[in-house]
Amino acid sequence: MKLGVCYYPEHWPENVWVDDARRMAEMGLSRVRIGEFAWSRIEPEPGRYDWGWLDRAIETLHRQGLGIILGTPTATPPKWLVDRMPDMVALDEDGRPRGFGSRRHYCFSHQGYQAECDRIVMALAERYGEHPGIVAWQTDNEYGCHDSAVSYSPAAAEAFRYWLANRYETIGALNEAWGNVFWSMEYRTFAEIDLPNLTVTEANPAHWLDFRRFSSDQVVRFNRRQANILRACSPGRDIIHNFMGFFTQFDHHAVGADLDVASWDSYPLGFLEQFWFSEEEKRSYLRQGHPDIAAFHHDLYRGCQKHGRWSVMEQQPGPVNWARFNPAPLPGMVRLWTLEAMAHGAEMVSYFRWRQFPKAQEQMHAGLLRPDSVEDVGGGEARQAAADIAAIGDAGPPPKSVALLFDYAGDWVTQIQPQGRGFSALRMAFDYYSALRQCGFDVDIISPQADFAGYRMLIIPCCPIIGADVVERLRAFDGPVLIGPRSGSKTTNLSIPAELAPGGLQQLIPLKVTRVESLRDGVEEQGEGFAISRWLEHVESNLEPEIRLSNGRGIVWREGSVRYLAGHLDAALLRDVIGLMAGDADMVVEDLPSGVRTRRAGMLRFAFNYGTQAQQLSVPEGAELLLGSARIEAAGVTVWRE
Amino acid sequence: MKLGVCYYPEHWPENVWVDDARRMAEMGLSRVRIGEFAWSRIEPEPGRYDWGWLDRAIETLHRQGLGIILGTPTATPPKWLVDRMPDMVALDEDGRPRGFGSRRHYCFSHQGYQAECDRIVMALAERYGEHPGIVAWQTDNEYGCHDSAVSYSPAAAEAFRYWLANRYETIGALNEAWGNVFWSMEYRTFAEIDLPNLTVTEANPAHWLDFRRFSSDQVVRFNRRQANILRACSPGRDIIHNFMGFFTQFDHHAVGADLDVASWDSYPLGFLEQFWFSEEEKRSYLRQGHPDIAAFHHDLYRGCQKHGRWSVMEQQPGPVNWARFNPAPLPGMVRLWTLEAMAHGAEMVSYFRWRQFPKAQEQMHAGLLRPDSVEDVGGGEARQAAADIAAIGDAGPPPKSVALLFDYAGDWVTQIQPQGRGFSALRMAFDYYSALRQCGFDVDIISPQADFAGYRMLIIPCCPIIGADVVERLRAFDGPVLIGPRSGSKTTNLSIPAELAPGGLQQLIPLKVTRVESLRDGVEEQGEGFAISRWLEHVESNLEPEIRLSNGRGIVWREGSVRYLAGHLDAALLRDVIGLMAGDADMVVEDLPSGVRTRRAGMLRFAFNYGTQAQQLSVPEGAELLLGSARIEAAGVTVWRE
Amino acid sequence: MKLGVCYYPEHWPENVWVDDARRMAEMGLSRVRIGEFAWSRIEPEPGRYDWGWLDRAIETLHRQGLGIILGTPTATPPKWLVDRMPDMVALDEDGRPRGFGSRRHYCFSHQGYQAECDRIVMALAERYGEHPGIVAWQTDNEYGCHDSAVSYSPAAAEAFRYWLANRYETIGALNEAWGNVFWSMEYRTFAEIDLPNLTVTEANPAHWLDFRRFSSDQVVRFNRRQANILRACSPGRDIIHNFMGFFTQFDHHAVGADLDVASWDSYPLGFLEQFWFSEEEKRSYLRQGHPDIAAFHHDLYRGCQKHGRWSVMEQQPGPVNWARFNPAPLPGMVRLWTLEAMAHGAEMVSYFRWRQFPKAQEQMHAGLLRPDSVEDVGGGEARQAAADIAAIGDAGPPPKSVALLFDYAGDWVTQIQPQGRGFSALRMAFDYYSALRQCGFDVDIISPQADFAGYRMLIIPCCPIIGADVVERLRAFDGPVLIGPRSGSKTTNLSIPAELAPGGLQQLIPLKVTRVESLRDGVEEQGEGFAISRWLEHVESNLEPEIRLSNGRGIVWREGSVRYLAGHLDAALLRDVIGLMAGDADMVVEDLPSGVRTRRAGMLRFAFNYGTQAQQLSVPEGAELLLGSARIEAAGVTVWRE
Repeated sequence: MKLGVCYYPEHWPENVWVDDARRMAEMGLSRVRIGEFAWSRIEPEPGRYDWGWLDRAIETLHRQGLGIILGTPTATPPKWLVDRMPDMVALDEDGRPRGFGSRRHYCFSHQGYQAECDRIVMALAERYGEHPGIVAWQTDNEYGCHDSAVSYSPAAAEAFRYWLANRYETIGALNEAWGNVFWSMEYRTFAEIDLPNLTVTEANPAHWLDFRRFSSDQVVRFNRRQANILRACSPGRDIIHNFMGFFTQFDHHAVGADLDVASWDSYPLGFLEQFWFSEEEKRSYLRQGHPDIAAFHHDLYRGCQKHGRWSVMEQQPGPVNWARFNPAPLPGMVRLWTLEAMAHGAEMVSYFRWRQFPKAQEQMHAGLLRPDSVEDVGGGEARQAAADIAAIGDAGPPPKSVALLFDYAGDWVTQIQPQGRGFSALRMAFDYYSALRQCGFDVDIISPQADFAGYRMLIIPCCPIIGADVVERLRAFDGPVLIGPRSGSKTTNLSIPAELAPGGLQQLIPLKVTRVESLRDGVEEQGEGFAISRWLEHVESNLEPEIRLSNGRGIVWREGSVRYLAGHLDAALLRDVIGLMAGDADMVVEDLPSGVRTRRAGMLRFAFNYGTQAQQLSVPEGAELLLGSARIEAAGVTVWRE
Repeated sequence: MKLGVCYYPEHWPENVWVDDARRMAEMGLSRVRIGEFAWSRIEPEPGRYDWGWLDRAIETLHRQGLGIILGTPTATPPKWLVDRMPDMVALDEDGRPRGFGSRRHYCFSHQGYQAECDRIVMALAERYGEHPGIVAWQTDNEYGCHDSAVSYSPAAAEAFRYWLANRYETIGALNEAWGNVFWSMEYRTFAEIDLPNLTVTEANPAHWLDFRRFSSDQVVRFNRRQANILRACSPGRDIIHNFMGFFTQFDHHAVGADLDVASWDSYPLGFLEQFWFSEEEKRSYLRQGHPDIAAFHHDLYRGCQKHGRWSVMEQQPGPVNWARFNPAPLPGMVRLWTLEAMAHGAEMVSYFRWRQFPKAQEQMHAGLLRPDSVEDVGGGEARQAAADIAAIGDAGPPPKSVALLFDYAGDWVTQIQPQGRGFSALRMAFDYYSALRQCGFDVDIISPQADFAGYRMLIIPCCPIIGADVVERLRAFDGPVLIGPRSGSKTTNLSIPAELAPGGLQQLIPLKVTRVESLRDGVEEQGEGFAISRWLEHVESNLEPEIRLSNGRGIVWREGSVRYLAGHLDAALLRDVIGLMAGDADMVVEDLPSGVRTRRAGMLRFAFNYGTQAQQLSVPEGAELLLGSARIEAAGVTVWRE
Repeated sequence: MKLGVCYYPEHWPENVWVDDARRMAEMGLSRVRIGEFAWSRIEPEPGRYDWGWLDRAIETLHRQGLGIILGTPTATPPKWLVDRMPDMVALDEDGRPRGFGSRRHYCFSHQGYQAECDRIVMALAERYGEHPGIVAWQTDNEYGCHDSAVSYSPAAAEAFRYWLANRYETIGALNEAWGNVFWSMEYRTFAEIDLPNLTVTEANPAHWLDFRRFSSDQVVRFNRRQANILRACSPGRDIIHNFMGFFTQFDHHAVGADLDVASWDSYPLGFLEQFWFSEEEKRSYLRQGHPDIAAFHHDLYRGCQKHGRWSVMEQQPGPVNWARFNPAPLPGMVRLWTLEAMAHGAEMVSYFRWRQFPKAQEQMHAGLLRPDSVEDVGGGEARQAAADIAAIGDAGPPPKSVALLFDYAGDWVTQIQPQGRGFSALRMAFDYYSALRQCGFDVDIISPQADFAGYRMLIIPCCPIIGADVVERLRAFDGPVLIGPRSGSKTTNLSIPAELAPGGLQQLIPLKVTRVESLRDGVEEQGEGFAISRWLEHVESNLEPEIRLSNGRGIVWREGSVRYLAGHLDAALLRDVIGLMAGDADMVVEDLPSGVRTRRAGMLRFAFNYGTQAQQLSVPEGAELLLGSARIEAAGVTVWRE
C-alpha cells in the first residue's frame, strides 16, 4: 500500500516546494494529490490560462519521485464564471440560490456550466495528460458535499422533465406509476411537472424517489463527461473520485462504474460527532472514532469499483474544523487508521493535508505539518505507518466471507418515507455491519447487483426495493441468507407490492407482512433476553416462528437457511441470529474484546484496538506476529500470519 | 348510529366496485363518502367533464343500499388550473409559494379560484343534487390542514385591507383600536397596511388577532359559498364538513353555523404522538391514544352545530402514516373508538379508508381492507361494532350536565401572546375537560355564545376575551362557575381592560389581577398538597382566598358559587376545586379506575377502558348490562342502563 | 445618582400629563426620557410636522423640574416613509426583507434613509436644542436590537464593497489577507465581492469578520451623524445612546467614543431566561437574575465612555413581556438593582416605563404604574431607592483594582469560528468576571486599547486578536496578568499567526499552542480537584507547567507574574488561579456567602444579596453602616463606609 498526501502548492511560496517534496518522500510518501481547487490560479481571467506555476509544481514533485494525482478544479468555479452565468448555481429546497463564496456553487444540471467544465478539464488533460509524473486524475471533489447533489433550480426542473419523459415515455405511464390519481395529482404533459419541493405537505414519495434518482443520474453523467475526456487524453492513468462518509445523495455504485479506483475521505472523529451515535458512544470513542466507521466505508467503497480497487484519498491527520466539536485523535490513531485501510485492501492512504493552512475556512484543520512547518503528530504517525507497511509486506486480497447488501435507492426510500422518525437503511446497514464485525467476520458490502458467488453468508439489512433478478440470484445462493425488516417492501416506484412485503422475497420465505409499526424512543417489545424497538412487523405465515416476543408474536422467521427479521433487533438478539446463521454455514463466531476489531487480508490477520484500555488478543498458537503483540494497547495494531 | 367508510372508486379498477360495495354492506356499513379528491378525474381538461365513471360508481354503491356522501373536490385543484392562475396558491409566513404536488394548494382569498370552485361545485350539484343515492355533501376536505387556513399572499393582503376597512370604517379607529401610536405604527390609509408576517420583531398582537379573525372569516365565506350552491341544487341533503383534531386556525363555531352536521376526523394515535402529551402519556397510551382525545373533540364539535348534530367522518382503522411514529392500535381499540362516538351522540362513524392504497402519500395508512383486499384488523372490528350498536339499540341524547366554555379567538390570543412559552387556551380546555371526565362527569364544550340554560355547572378554563353579553348571561346563571386564569384578561382588540383582568368578569367576582408571572418548566409554587406551575397571578381583592399558596398568596378565590383560579393548578388541586363546585351543585365526584372513562347517553352509561390492564367498574346494582361486564378488559367497553 | 423614567406622552390623553409629571417628581424622579418612538406623531405626513403636542409635553415635564432626555425617533420610521423607499429595509441572512410593522425596519447602509434621519434629527434639534428643559439627547434606540445591526441588502453590499476598497486599496491585498486562493475564492475587482450569506457552506471567516467590522462601522457612522447634528444645535447637552445586554453586534467602544454618556437597558430577569445560564441558575435566580448580569454590564459600559460616564436608561421595574418566561422580581429587587447601579458609579437609573401601556407589543411589560394608574410594586421600590440614595449620599468613584479586557472583534471571531459549538468570548468574559466578583474584587471591563495604568491585575479571558501595540503595553504592565485560552490566536484578518497562538503574547510568556481540542458537553479532562471541559490546548514550551492535568499535560503556565491558561477551567480552578495572582498582587480573596456580591465606590462598600436566603456579611468592625445591617436579607442591600 502506498502513502500519499494532499498538497496545495498554490497556497505556499514557490521556494518551499522543493523542500516540501523532499520531506514528503523522506516521510515515506509516494503519492501527492494537487490542483482540485485551483481554477482561479489556472485561469485567472476568462480564457487566459496561467500554466507556469502548475508546470513548475508538477515538475518539482515529480523530480522527488512522487506520483501525482491531479484534480480537476470543477468544484470551485471562479467568481468571474459565476458572474457570467448567475443561474449556474443550485437552488436549495427553500428556493434560495446557493451562491459563490465557499465551494460547490454549481447545479449539476446547468448546461452552460457543464460546457465550461468540459473546457477546463480538456485544457488540463491536454496539457498534462501524458506527463510522466501524472499517475491518476481525481474528478472534481466530493460530489454532493454540503448537500450539493440535489438542486431545485430551473435548470434542474427542466432536466428532470426530460429525464422523466425518457423513463416513462407517456405521461399516462408516469401517472399510473406514481399513483397520481391520489389527490388529483395527475399531469397532462411532462411539462406540467414541478420539482417536489415547496409543496403544501409532502409530495408524492414516488415523485421524490424519481427526483432522487434523477439527481443521482446527473452526478453520474457529470462525472462520466470528465472521465471520458481524461481517458481520451491521458491514457493509462487511473480515474478516481473521492467519496465521503455516511453519504448517500447519489448512487456510488453507478459513479463507481466509471472509475478505475474508488476513493473516499476518512474523518472518523468528525463522523462520530456528526452522525447518529449515542452520547455514550460519542464519549467512549471521542478520540478514536467508533471502531466500525472507517471499516464500514472501506468495505462499502471497495464494492463500488468493479475490480475492488479503492483508496483513502483524504485521511484525518489530527483535529478537524468542521464538526460541532473537534477533539484530537488519541496518539497512535492516525497510524491505526492507516493500517486498518491496508487490512481492507486499500491501494493508497493519502493524508489531508500536508501543511495546515493558516487562513480561510479550514485553518483549524490539522495537517502532517503545523502551519509553522514543524512536523505535527500526524506526520510522525504517517512516518511510522510507512515503516509498518514495509514490515508487514504485501497483504493478500480481502477474503470472500460475508456479503452485506446495500443499495442507495434503498436509503432514499427510508429518507423519503421513514414512517418512524430517524429510520434509515444506511444506519441499518451500519448496525448489521458492526454486529458482524464484532463477531470477528470479514464483510464485503456489495450492491444487490453484484455477484454473490463465493460468499458464505448473505445479509440484507434493509433493501426496500429488490428486483426480480436479484430474487432469482438470491434463490440460487446456497448459504444462509438474513433478510432484515422493510426489505422487499416496495416496488420500483415506491409502492406496496401486490403480494405485500417482502414482495418477491416471499419466493425465499413464505410469509407476508400485513402491518408495520414504528415505535417511539423508549418503547420496547420484550422477548426472552432481548427487546425490539423502533420497528415491528406483523407477519402472516404458515411457518412457525424461530424466535418469538413474550406476547407470542413471531420476530425471527426461518425457512431452510433463509431468515426474516420482523423488527429492529437489539444487539443481543442480532448477535444470536448471526450465531444461528454461522452455525448453518460452519463459521465460528468470535467474542472480541471490547473496542477490538479484526480484518483478514490474504493469510494475514490485523487486529485494532479502538478502546482506551489494553486488551488481550487470542492469537492462534504458532501464528507469526508481524506487528505488535497479543497484548494490544489502546490505539494499538497487531498483525499476524495465520 | 350508522357506520360508513371513505372510498375512492377512482383508485381501483371498475370491476372491483361491485364486490367492494357488497362487502361494505355485508360488514354493516350503510354510508360511503366519495369524490373529495377527484377533480382531475371529473374534469381532466379545462372545461371537459368526465361524468361517466362517477355516474357508474354512484350507481354501484347506491344499488347496495349505501347512502353516499359526496365530497366537493376543491381541496385538490388539478395542475392545469394552478398553471392557469399561478397566484392562486398561498404564500407561507416566509413568503414562499405553497405549490402544487400534494393538496390544499390554494389561498382562500383568491377570487379567481373561488370562481372556479363555484363552477365545479355547481357542476357536481346540478348533476347529482337530486340523485336518490346522495344523502349528504361534504364541502372541500379538512379546511386548514397543513396550516392552510392562513396565507400571506397578495390576494390575502388585499382582502385583509378590505376586511379591515369594513370592520373599522376609519383608519383612525383602527389606529386607536390597535394602539398604533406605539412604535409609530400608525397608518394613514387602509392601503398602507401589510400582513403581519416578515416584520423585524413581532408585529402588533392586535394586528395578528385581526389577521387571524380575517383568515377565519375567509374560511367561513369559502364554505358558505359551497353550502349555498349545494342547498339550492340538492334539497334535503345534509351539508357536512370534516374538521380536524386539536386545530383552531379558524372559528369552527362560525363554520358550523352553515352546516347541517359537524363532523371530524379522529386519529387518536397520531394526535397523541403529535401533540403536547408527556413522554409518559405517549408511552402509556401508545396504542390507545390518551383517553380524552376523541371524547374532547366529540363534545367540542357537537357544540359546533346548532342542533348538536355531528359525526366522525374519518375514523382511524389501524396504523397511520403521518405521525412521527406510527404504532398499531391495541386490538379492540377501533371498536372502542366507534362506541365512544356513539356514547357522545354521533350520527355516524365512517372509517378512513376502505382499502389501503398501495401508492402515493398515504400508502402506509391502514384501511378496513389490506392492499391485497383481505380484511384487515380494523375491518373485523368495524363488523363487531356494527353488531354491538345493534345490541345496544338507540341511545338517548347526551345529558346536559357540565358546560365547558371554549372560543377560538381565545386560543388565537394565547398563540399570539403566550407570555409564557407553550401556554395555550386549547390545552387549558383539554386539561380541564380531562379533569372533569376523570370525575365521571359528562361535559358539553360550548361557545360562550351558546345557551347556558339547563347546565349544572359552568367551567371557563381560559377565555381571554369575554364580551359584555356573555358576562350578563354568566351573571344570570345560577350554578357554580369556575373561571380559569387569563379569562377576561383582554378586550376585543387584545388590549388590557381598563379595569384590569378579569375585565367584565369582575362583575361575577370582585378581584383584580394586578400582575402575572409565567414560570419556566421545573419551577413550582408550593401549596398544601398541591403546586402551581406555568402561570401565576397576583390578585388584589377584599375577598379572603379560599385556598392559598404556602407563602400566603391566594390561589383560589370565591364569591358565592363563582370561583376564580389565579394560576395553573396541578391535577390534584383541580380535582379538589371541582369537588368543591360539585358539592355546591349537589353532584357526585367519582373516582374512576386509571384509564377508564364513562359517558352517559339518555338512560345508558358507557364505560371505556383505555388502559392496558383490566379494571373493575362500579356498575350500580340492578343496572341492566347491554354490553360487556363490570370487569372491563383493556380496550373493553361496557354499557348498562341505569 | 439621579432617578428617571421613560415616558410616552403620546400614549396618554393630554389631561393626565400634569398629574403624571407631578407624581414622577413626588416619587423622587428628576429625569424623564421621551420621544424616541414618536416619529408618526411628530411628522404624521411627509414634511408636515406637528410640534404642538410635543411642545406642550416638554413644557409640562419641565415645569415639574424634570430634566428631559429627548430621543431621536429614527428607530421607528413611519409607514409612509417606508412606502416611499421600500428598499430602505434590511434583508435578513436568508434574503427576506425585514418589513414594517414593529420597529428597527431600516438598513444602516441605506443612503436615502440616512438623509431622512438627518432631516428629522435636524428638525428636532433646531426646535428643542436650546430648550432649558432638555438636558440630554438619546440617539435612536437600542442599535442592533432584533439582530438589526447586520443587513444583507443591496445597499449593504454596495457599501461593503466601498468599505473594503478603502481598507485594502487593491484587490490583491484583500485576496492575500483573506487567503482567497483557498477554494479559488479570488476576486478580480471589489465589485465582484458579495456578502457572506447564502453561500453553499460557510464563507471565508475573514470575509465574515470584515463584514462584521463593516456592519459595526455603519452603526458608528450612523450614530455619529446624529451626534454631530445634535452637538451643533444643542450645545451643552449630553449625547447618550442606550445599549443592550449580552449584545455584541457592533463595537460599543467605538460608538461610545461619540457619546457623552454610555447608557444601557437593564433587564436582569429577561437576560437570565434568554441567555446561556444553566437550568439550575435559571431556577435559583428566577426572580433576581444572576447576581453578575447587571454588574457585568455596568462595568462594561462604564468602560465604553472615555470619562467613565454611564447610566441605566431602562431599568426593569417588574415582569416583562419578551422572554420565553416572564416571572416577577422578588420584592426588593427593583430597589436592589437601582442601588447596584449606584455602587458602580451610574449617573442615573431610569425606569422603563412610567405606566404600563395596555395595548400593542409591550402591553405585558410592567411599569412603575399599573395600566389603571395605581402605583405598581416597582413604583414603590423606586420611591424607596430615592430615599436610600439620599441616605447614602454621594458615593465616590469606582476604585481602580482589577481590569478585565474585552473587545468586540474578539467575540465576532468566536461567533464566526466557534470551533467547538457554543464557544463565546463574551461568555468567557462573563465567567471570569463572575469568578473575580465572587472573590470580592471590583472589576473594570476595558478595551485592550484602554490605559492599564493604576490597575493591580489584568485579566484577558479571551481576546483572539491582540495588536502589537497592546502586547507592548502589556509588557510594560507590572502586575499579574492572566491570559485565557484562544487569546492571541488570530491575526487581524482571522488567520493563525506565523508564530502560532498566542501570537505576540509569546513575548510575555514563552510558549506555543500547537493544537487545540474542543470537547463536547459531558467530556472532561481531570486534574487534582478540578476538571477541564469545552476547550483544551496542547502547549509546547520550555517552561514547567504550574498546574497539570492528571495525565501530565500542563494546563496553567507561568512566567513571572504572567499566566496562561491552556483550557477552559472549572470554577474551582479558576478561583485557585485568581488566588495565586492575588497573592502576587498582595490582594485578599474573599469568600462571599452564596448569592452575595459587593462593590466599592470611593470609601463606601455596597453589599447585595441576590439569594433567597438571608446571609451574614463580614462588615469590618468600626465600619459605619449607611444602609441595612450585617445580616442581609434576600434582596437586601447593606452599605457601609470602610
